[in-house]
Amino acid sequence: MTRLTASHRSDYSLFRTLATRWGDVDIYGHVNNVVYLAYFDTAINGWYLDEGMLRMGKSEKIFLVVETGAQYFAEIKFPDTVYAGISVMRLGKSSVTFDIALFTNDAETACARGQYTHVLVDQQTRRPVAIEGHTRHCFEKYLVKPLSG
Amino acid sequence: MTRLTASHRSDYSLFRTLATRWGDVDIYGHVNNVVYLAYFDTAINGWYLDEGMLRMGKSEKIFLVVETGAQYFAEIKFPDTVYAGISVMRLGKSSVTFDIALFTNDAETACARGQYTHVLVDQQTRRPVAIEGHTRHCFEKYLVKPLSG
Amino acid sequence: MTRLTASHRSDYSLFRTLATRWGDVDIYGHVNNVVYLAYFDTAINGWYLDEGMLRMGKSEKIFLVVETGAQYFAEIKFPDTVYAGISVMRLGKSSVTFDIALFTNDAETACARGQYTHVLVDQQTRRPVAIEGHTRHCFEKYLVKPLSG
Amino acid sequence: MTRLTASHRSDYSLFRTLATRWGDVDIYGHVNNVVYLAYFDTAINGWYLDEGMLRMGKSEKIFLVVETGAQYFAEIKFPDTVYAGISVMRLGKSSVTFDIALFTNDAETACARGQYTHVLVDQQTRRPVAIEGHTRHCFEKYLVKPLSG
Repeated sequence: MTRLTASHRSDYSLFRTLATRWGDVDIYGHVNNVVYLAYFDTAINGWYLDEGMLRMGKSEKIFLVVETGAQYFAEIKFPDTVYAGISVMRLGKSSVTFDIALFTNDAETACARGQYTHVLVDQQTRRPVAIEGHTRHCFEKYLVKPLSG
Repeated sequence: MTRLTASHRSDYSLFRTLATRWGDVDIYGHVNNVVYLAYFDTAINGWYLDEGMLRMGKSEKIFLVVETGAQYFAEIKFPDTVYAGISVMRLGKSSVTFDIALFTNDAETACARGQYTHVLVDQQTRRPVAIEGHTRHCFEKYLVKPLSG
Repeated sequence: MTRLTASHRSDYSLFRTLATRWGDVDIYGHVNNVVYLAYFDTAINGWYLDEGMLRMGKSEKIFLVVETGAQYFAEIKFPDTVYAGISVMRLGKSSVTFDIALFTNDAETACARGQYTHVLVDQQTRRPVAIEGHTRHCFEKYLVKPLSG
Repeated sequence: MTRLTASHRSDYSLFRTLATRWGDVDIYGHVNNVVYLAYFDTAINGWYLDEGMLRMGKSEKIFLVVETGAQYFAEIKFPDTVYAGISVMRLGKSSVTFDIALFTNDAETACARGQYTHVLVDQQTRRPVAIEGHTRHCFEKYLVKPLSG
């Protein structure tokens, strides 16, 4: 993966608030790297549910992750509050790729930044379907030129 | 274990706010039973840290769990907000047992209720030490007669 | 809860093998208390699937947890292998309560022991249904008198 | 990230065995994407411990993750057994990047493949230190030309 730079809050217009947990912390006294991806997953799906782009357990079309990844710049500690800044890097016919950055408490510079690609599929067949209507509109609202790496 | 009744918010005076995550939900579409215990763990330790009863990675005396358990009355769904109501059921020389109940969103009746026992130990020897001073004072503040089961 | 004694491998005839993970370990360098419950959950449901008592995502009747709990006697470390010893303490019309103990590596004495109660419900209505046939037979095979606490 | 192809078991010579858990499965009935990264983390650190490259809680030099990521080709279900195939893509002065692929049961083609970069740091200062001696030797043993994407 190309090495990304740590982005800033001002690079994003969509934010989600996330909470750390005691068990997120590993033997090294900081939030384990894997948990950052759980923050991504929660930020994205929580936004979908709030926007009505997904209905929990009731949608005929669901989003499956085909790629995810993160680069780590600084530690997260418990009980930090984490803010996810989200923008849409790429919007294809059936897929969407997010640029997500995590910020702790009042920090302006990201402690981690990653990419996360969802494909919209039919829940039964698991075959890709087109992203349309309200859902596409929500993505377009946050579609930006990719930040320089 | 004796079957507990679902307690109410009015039974508690100490509350902690917890956030659900996408991955908390299992194949049955609700938060997995194990995660409720992670909510307990986060509520108790988060309170300790906020009160200065514990310093993350820096305390010579730490709390270890010797017993935990929960009874389940209703589902939690993502992205519910969960409120933990906490009271101190028993306060011994080195141990403390909490009555913890979880409430979703604006529900007045608990969706789960459990017990959680911490023992204060020396971090090096892992032998029990006395709960004293500020920490004991914090526990005494929330010490109540056990609710009738 | 009544204080349980640490049981032994010889107290059980059904065993399940479980693997620890790096992220199971918390800031204190041992497996976090919550993860023990995930071991219980995996041991029980894994046995159901192997025995055909449950089909993943295809059963009209599913088991929901109404109570769980554990008492902790000794630490688990990564990368220990954990063995769950399981017996059936109580078998009701719709519910089953297990006595579960966890053993690390070649230890004969349990590092933790708990109880875990499942209720069989209709997946749609979530109302209790009778445990019958093959499933009841599997439970009866491991039904023992409760060990003295 | 460049789109990777699904690699095969024959592309790797180092393997680690991993176990799925009931709670790994999300509302869609398959192992949640985040858990794949926990498999990576467990495979790598478990290998370190077995090889004596790391001593749990006792090493003056520890490995911290600076980058991780995965691409997903097929589902993992509970209770699948997962095998991680590992090779070293890049070995720098203080860092090592792994190519990791996950294989379920007897599948020859990877269900997921990712990259995972560790930096060796001094536990106190958290500053990079050189990878030397036995540890470097272990990495060199599995150092291969990167597979064609």
